[in-house]
Amino acid sequence: MSNLTKSIEEVIKQFKRFPTVGEKSATRFAYFLMRQPKGEVKKLLSAIVAITKDVKFCGSCNNLDDRDPCGICSNPKRDASTVCVVESAVDLRAIERTKKYNGRYFVLHGVLSPLDGVAPKDLKINKLIELVKNNKVKEVILATNPRVQGETTANYIKGQLSGSEVKVSRIAYGIPVGGELEFIDSVSLVRSLEGRRRY
Amino acid sequence: MSNLTKSIEEVIKQFKRFPTVGEKSATRFAYFLMRQPKGEVKKLLSAIVAITKDVKFCGSCNNLDDRDPCGICSNPKRDASTVCVVESAVDLRAIERTKKYNGRYFVLHGVLSPLDGVAPKDLKINKLIELVKNNKVKEVILATNPRVQGETTANYIKGQLSGSEVKVSRIAYGIPVGGELEFIDSVSLVRSLEGRRRY
Repeated sequence: MSNLTKSIEEVIKQFKRFPTVGEKSATRFAYFLMRQPKGEVKKLLSAIVAITKDVKFCGSCNNLDDRDPCGICSNPKRDASTVCVVESAVDLRAIERTKKYNGRYFVLHGVLSPLDGVAPKDLKINKLIELVKNNKVKEVILATNPRVQGETTANYIKGQLSGSEVKVSRIAYGIPVGGELEFIDSVSLVRSLEGRRRY
Repeated sequence: MSNLTKSIEEVIKQFKRFPTVGEKSATRFAYFLMRQPKGEVKKLLSAIVAITKDVKFCGSCNNLDDRDPCGICSNPKRDASTVCVVESAVDLRAIERTKKYNGRYFVLHGVLSPLDGVAPKDLKINKLIELVKNNKVKEVILATNPRVQGETTANYIKGQLSGSEVKVSRIAYGIPVGGELEFIDSVSLVRSLEGRRRY
C-alpha cells in the first residue's frame, strides 16, 4: 500500500465522521479533493481553520460564535424577553436568515433521546429554566423539529416551565408554503386543519 | 455580520463544491466541524494536506498517485497486456479492493457527454488507443458504469479499437449478488437472462 493510499484511507475515515456521510461519499470527497487545483484546496483549509480556531459556545444561549456572549445575546436591540429554543445552531441560522425574529435563542445541541443516552442535563435544560427565571423572559418559543424526539423535548421543557408565568408556545405545524395537499402526509394535513386561522 | 458568520459562509461555499453536497449538507458540515475538538479538526486538515500535496496524474494510465508512473503501472507483477477502462479513480479503487484483477487501468476521469461539452479529447481516448497499440495490449475491459453516458463512452471506445486485433470486452450486467429478482428493474433482469451461463 503506497503512502498516498494510506493517506486516502485516512481522509475517508475523517470524512465518514461528518453527518450523513458514508463510505461512498467520503471516498468521492477524497478523490474530488485530489483533482482540485492547489489554490482551491488551500481556500477550503483556510476556511475550516477560520471557523474552528476561535469558535466559542455562548455562555448564555449555547450558540456558536467567536465571542462570548455571542453577537445575538450581546446585541441590545434584540428582545431579551423572548427566547426561541432550537435543537442546533444550524436551526438558529435558518431562523436568523428569515430576518423576521428579533428575540434571543437557546440552543440545545441535541434532543432528548433515552435510547441514545441523551438526558435533560445533556441539553442543559436547567440552564434554560434558570435563564427564563432570571431574565424575566415573557415567552419561550419551542422550535424543536416536529419529529418524535423534537416533540418529546418540547413537551419536557413545557413541563419544566409549567410552574412559572412565562408563555410557552410551539411553532405552527401545517402545509409548507408551495406544498400541495395531494402529496402532503395526512398527519400534517390534520394539523394544518386544526391550526386553521380566520382569513 | 460577525467575522465568524463570514467564515461560516465561506466554509459552506467551499463544501458546496464537493460532489453531491448542497447547501444543507454543507451547512451541517460547517457546524459539525465547529463542535469538534481541535485535535479532530487537525487530523482532518493534515489528512487533506497529505492527499493533495504530492498527488500526481500517472502519465500512462491517468490514475492519481504520489508517483508517476503510478504504483500499478510501475509494478512488474501486473499484467500489462490487459487494460481496464474506468470512469474515475474511485472506480479503479473499487476494483482494486476486490483483489481479483491483476491487469492495468486507464482512467477516463469522466464520460462522453456532448450536452456538457465532454468530447473524446477531454477523456484522452487517443492516449488510450495509442497505449493499446504501443504496449501490445491483448484485452481492453470496458468498465464504465452501465448508464446512458457510460454505455455511449464504452461504445465509442469499442468503435475506435475496431480496426485493431485487441479483444474488447464489457463487464457483465445482471442481478447484484444478494439482490432479489422481485425488486430488480426489468432491464437488469433481461440482461441477466441474456447473460446466463452454463451451471
